[in-house]
Amino acid sequence: MTTTVNAYAATQPWGSSAPLTKTTVERRDVGPNDVAIDIKFAGICHSDLHTVSGEWGDVTFPMTPGHEIAGIVTEVGSDVTRYAVGDRVGVGCFVDSCRECEFCQAGEEQYCNNPGMIGTYNGTGRDGKPTQGGYSDAIVVDENYVLRIPDSIALDKAAPLLCAGITLYSPLRHWDAGPGKRVAVIGLGGLGHMGVKLAHALGAHVTVLSQSLKKMEDGLRLGADEYFATSDPDTFKKLRGSFDLILNTVSANLNMEDYLGLLRLDGTLVELGMPENPMPIPAGVLIFGRRRLSGSLIGGIKETQEMLDFCAEHDVTPEIEVIEASYVNEAYERMLASDVRYRFVIDNSTL
Amino acid sequence: MTTTVNAYAATQPWGSSAPLTKTTVERRDVGPNDVAIDIKFAGICHSDLHTVSGEWGDVTFPMTPGHEIAGIVTEVGSDVTRYAVGDRVGVGCFVDSCRECEFCQAGEEQYCNNPGMIGTYNGTGRDGKPTQGGYSDAIVVDENYVLRIPDSIALDKAAPLLCAGITLYSPLRHWDAGPGKRVAVIGLGGLGHMGVKLAHALGAHVTVLSQSLKKMEDGLRLGADEYFATSDPDTFKKLRGSFDLILNTVSANLNMEDYLGLLRLDGTLVELGMPENPMPIPAGVLIFGRRRLSGSLIGGIKETQEMLDFCAEHDVTPEIEVIEASYVNEAYERMLASDVRYRFVIDNSTL
Repeated sequence: MTTTVNAYAATQPWGSSAPLTKTTVERRDVGPNDVAIDIKFAGICHSDLHTVSGEWGDVTFPMTPGHEIAGIVTEVGSDVTRYAVGDRVGVGCFVDSCRECEFCQAGEEQYCNNPGMIGTYNGTGRDGKPTQGGYSDAIVVDENYVLRIPDSIALDKAAPLLCAGITLYSPLRHWDAGPGKRVAVIGLGGLGHMGVKLAHALGAHVTVLSQSLKKMEDGLRLGADEYFATSDPDTFKKLRGSFDLILNTVSANLNMEDYLGLLRLDGTLVELGMPENPMPIPAGVLIFGRRRLSGSLIGGIKETQEMLDFCAEHDVTPEIEVIEASYVNEAYERMLASDVRYRFVIDNSTL
Repeated sequence: MTTTVNAYAATQPWGSSAPLTKTTVERRDVGPNDVAIDIKFAGICHSDLHTVSGEWGDVTFPMTPGHEIAGIVTEVGSDVTRYAVGDRVGVGCFVDSCRECEFCQAGEEQYCNNPGMIGTYNGTGRDGKPTQGGYSDAIVVDENYVLRIPDSIALDKAAPLLCAGITLYSPLRHWDAGPGKRVAVIGLGGLGHMGVKLAHALGAHVTVLSQSLKKMEDGLRLGADEYFATSDPDTFKKLRGSFDLILNTVSANLNMEDYLGLLRLDGTLVELGMPENPMPIPAGVLIFGRRRLSGSLIGGIKETQEMLDFCAEHDVTPEIEVIEASYVNEAYERMLASDVRYRFVIDNSTL
């Protein structure tokens, strides 16, 4: 037995002539450990676009994207202990993992290697069926992969925290961003603007490195201490050797030698976006300065809950534009044109 | 006033038709803080070859290479407190630095940025003259840049520790190689064989990743627990996700995606050689596994002394082939052909 709910889905690789269209998806019955969620809002992540376009490899259609889910619990299974009907909850980028490997055991389910976390959409659930995401009326998820949304965070603002928020929070914490640390954020978009807010809330000195100074006023208002245009070659001379941590949210290929040169001794540049082509890295910029290049993938369930609680305590929420479901294809086009400040969120009551 | 001493030098970019030839170099008078050293042995480093060939940019001829220097103090300046005539001492890759920047202050003179450490050769001394290295009878160095060689280490064996030794010791210590850590060393040459010995002495589990199994017997004898051929694609499947630390001593360009994939979560691959071309790094291999790519440059004076003392305590010394000075060009040719186990050391009494 399953429940049929309204959704938006791609039936083929997305493009202007192959839009997402209104359809339905099936949700499984609530099992002993499951929570059924009435989805109120779903954030639109740039990775939704990469995935439905088929840019990131294996895709199964029809596909309902969405992994920034905020809603209300409508039913709980017999063995559920952590949630009750009426609770405000969220679901992020994955809905299950092996629970047995060392990474799952350590609460770093995003790095599960047995064989890997089960994506909220375009994954394969334990029942062998393709998972379907948050551009839909409801979802059923094991309680261990559900987050509690603090009362002080509105559900529409909570949605983007489940991916954009944790994607920035995890590396900021992992590399000890805080007072006395100089953090730079490359790109002021959906991810970048959360980086600025979170790094500022953590007490770090925050610099935005953006292609132009177009969004400078925004950046400073969001918490940046400094703002530089990367189109100006002087930026790279002026800031050489100055950052402890650089978070790269831009998925276009950049001149990494320039950016790595901005790190001080033992500083780290963390890739969060996924550039299409391999990055050419000259060894010298790493060797002379013991600089590090790394990457980071969302965060585990425990850390995601910690992030939500941190955001509630420090009043950190994304800047959003709430849209009707039928606007989703236009939203994708605008996202491609970087025309969003700073995250689209679907009002799922309009599905 | 200066002293003229015998030396071998390049007068133009080195090649089979432009060998190093016998000549003399001038050494400055011993200043208040200086130590004069009778050079007994000088190691031949692969970077000598890169530098005299002009592969690494700016070079000034004539140039006497050599930055793995071991000898005996013959004279000390009036203000010298740390050394006396007759002491067994060494000099490594640099003979001075600004002493004022935060890196010099922290004892990480190799990362001095004001404007940088003064190389033992092919640098510019405080007197404005080109520095000349260890393929010579004697050298005069400020006592703060001189190391003490423990009595239990023979001077010929001590020489290669001053570059090859510290180049491996520093990253092993910096990234906490020790009991319970799995360390891999790529390449079993002058640097690599020191990496195996040092990592083993530090208590880590050591794996050699070499192109073939040709030197396997050696590798295991030197302290490796395991030895794999990288020409076998199975090696990369078998070892995927297994190392905490990988030290890359190979300066040829490798398929970095394969090697980075061998790191476990939060593991680090450290570049020690200097590949000619930028390394193409796909962001995914860093993001999925929070892997790190870094580099490391020799070590500071304090850490180099610590390394020498560690080597004495743990009886760690390089495998060397002592040669006469007139053999230096042939030694270069053999080094190019990877035909050395594992470091050439010049007996400077033959100059």
